[in-house]
Amino acid sequence: MSPRASSPATVKIGDVARAAGVSLGTVSKALNGTGSLREETRRHVQEVADRLGFVPDSRGRGLASGRTYTVGFLTTDSFGRFTLPILMGAEDALSVGRMAVILSDTRDDRAREEHLVRSLRGRRVDGLVVTGRSTDERARVDIDIPVVYAFTRPDDPEQCAVLSDEAAGAALAARHLLSLGRSRILHVTGPQRHRSARVRAEAVVDTAGDALVGEPMFGTWSEEWGRRAIDIALASGLDVDAVCCGSDQIARGVLDQLHERRIAVPEQVAVTGYDNWDVMALAARPPLTTVDMNLGEVGRRAGEMLLELIDGREPARCEIIVPPRLEIRGSTV
Amino acid sequence: MSPRASSPATVKIGDVARAAGVSLGTVSKALNGTGSLREETRRHVQEVADRLGFVPDSRGRGLASGRTYTVGFLTTDSFGRFTLPILMGAEDALSVGRMAVILSDTRDDRAREEHLVRSLRGRRVDGLVVTGRSTDERARVDIDIPVVYAFTRPDDPEQCAVLSDEAAGAALAARHLLSLGRSRILHVTGPQRHRSARVRAEAVVDTAGDALVGEPMFGTWSEEWGRRAIDIALASGLDVDAVCCGSDQIARGVLDQLHERRIAVPEQVAVTGYDNWDVMALAARPPLTTVDMNLGEVGRRAGEMLLELIDGREPARCEIIVPPRLEIRGSTV
Repeated sequence: MSPRASSPATVKIGDVARAAGVSLGTVSKALNGTGSLREETRRHVQEVADRLGFVPDSRGRGLASGRTYTVGFLTTDSFGRFTLPILMGAEDALSVGRMAVILSDTRDDRAREEHLVRSLRGRRVDGLVVTGRSTDERARVDIDIPVVYAFTRPDDPEQCAVLSDEAAGAALAARHLLSLGRSRILHVTGPQRHRSARVRAEAVVDTAGDALVGEPMFGTWSEEWGRRAIDIALASGLDVDAVCCGSDQIARGVLDQLHERRIAVPEQVAVTGYDNWDVMALAARPPLTTVDMNLGEVGRRAGEMLLELIDGREPARCEIIVPPRLEIRGSTV
Repeated sequence: MSPRASSPATVKIGDVARAAGVSLGTVSKALNGTGSLREETRRHVQEVADRLGFVPDSRGRGLASGRTYTVGFLTTDSFGRFTLPILMGAEDALSVGRMAVILSDTRDDRAREEHLVRSLRGRRVDGLVVTGRSTDERARVDIDIPVVYAFTRPDDPEQCAVLSDEAAGAALAARHLLSLGRSRILHVTGPQRHRSARVRAEAVVDTAGDALVGEPMFGTWSEEWGRRAIDIALASGLDVDAVCCGSDQIARGVLDQLHERRIAVPEQVAVTGYDNWDVMALAARPPLTTVDMNLGEVGRRAGEMLLELIDGREPARCEIIVPPRLEIRGSTV
């Protein structure tokens, strides 16, 4: 524990003004980066403030404006793979508005979520970003401050949301396989009850057209399902030259099982994933061509939209669909 | 965006007291969970408060006590695999003290860290948890409030820290292999410049004794290194009946390459990992026996220690070493 004796909290803004030989207003502008000051004045004041150990009390902003300059980030995804890039993007955007982010992890527990929302209201956060692992619809959060949903979809169309274009992502992968001349494409994906699996499957079916082999194979988001799907497909005599997978984990299982059966990737069968999850995609043999949902951009746009709502501005659009991109690697070319 | 017209912020504590037919003090005790009240009184007050839409303003606590009831959580680990379980454990402990956690992600950037620390000081957070991906020593954070380091190690021995016992974890894995009668154990791990790799390697060497085959093989924390290490070991004619790995990713590569060479696991060669990272350990074939560092417990103890420091209590110990445990699965038995 650090000593508290020499706490710089005791240095007042007047001390800085006196030592720097400028007015209180100049100190305020210099340290807050507001108003117009010569760069050398700003730097001089900052140096004096640093030397004296002056720390501006940012709570003052809140008292003056009625705002707390804090935002809640409510997530159901303890695991973090989807949430973290969204959080980082949102942090980038919100820090421009000098907002701090209070993390609230519901752990998929409805009672815990209600408790956390009450606690965020009690702290008078200025707004809320709501996210989660699933793109299925979720109940809207009942709170009387600006809310933006990111990646996850609110059941109330009046709510503002930034979503990933999952159909476009799946179509990108299928079109890439077609462009390589593949004409017998199998689609292996997650559970049919998940919106992500259904939307991606529809887009693959639409895009691949006659090049689609059999029906989409729904299963689980796991390597084990990827391996088993290959066994099932080959046992039933399907002749495929490409497997378009609904996730990187599924694709990883598909690759392993093709390798096991000495089927050459990409020469005999090309494989695509979905997520661009580096630990899966880069360690795969060969490295995996996969769809990147640009989750950082989803978070950034959500943060920007929330800042607009908090400032009382009407955002240009209340729903933003972020386009995905395709990372092309050795599993297809 | 939600309507702000019917903001429940306008309902005062006195309205709740009148409607519930109790005193202000009883409302306060009931909603804060303090003092002694009959359970039915507490529930009655809560119901009335909920019906009226009353939200206690938790900033009041701060004004009265000089505290903000917020804690900074400073992490260098954007990736989140090690950080998130620590964060969740810390949140559990801190929420008991009704503290909110402000997440600050330095992204391994020193300038960004300094900016974030200044911002946390400006917000007058009551304390700070510092964590990161690496157990290497890091510079102490220069801030005049209570700080607890979790998982990561401060370069100043006066600082309070909660760490994982990495030597004990590696010894657990080696002892498990010995207990299964394995007598030709190979150790494959990460870069020698990482403290984690060195500490784990020393513990494996000490524990395995004569059963160790060759020198520890230092490389990278990757599947690719695990695969290559097996090729190198077999090409140099090493006869092994167990591979004790420094991480789950390395173990995953080792398993894949043994599988490739038709070497039966665990019959011919037993394999252990380190991390108990579920996506790696559970999807492995066979599922991986691995060391779990109990990172949730590391976070929980760090949160508890920080609450003690914030309350001005001297913690019983300023350094806590959390013991790991071994998850035994099909790769060894």
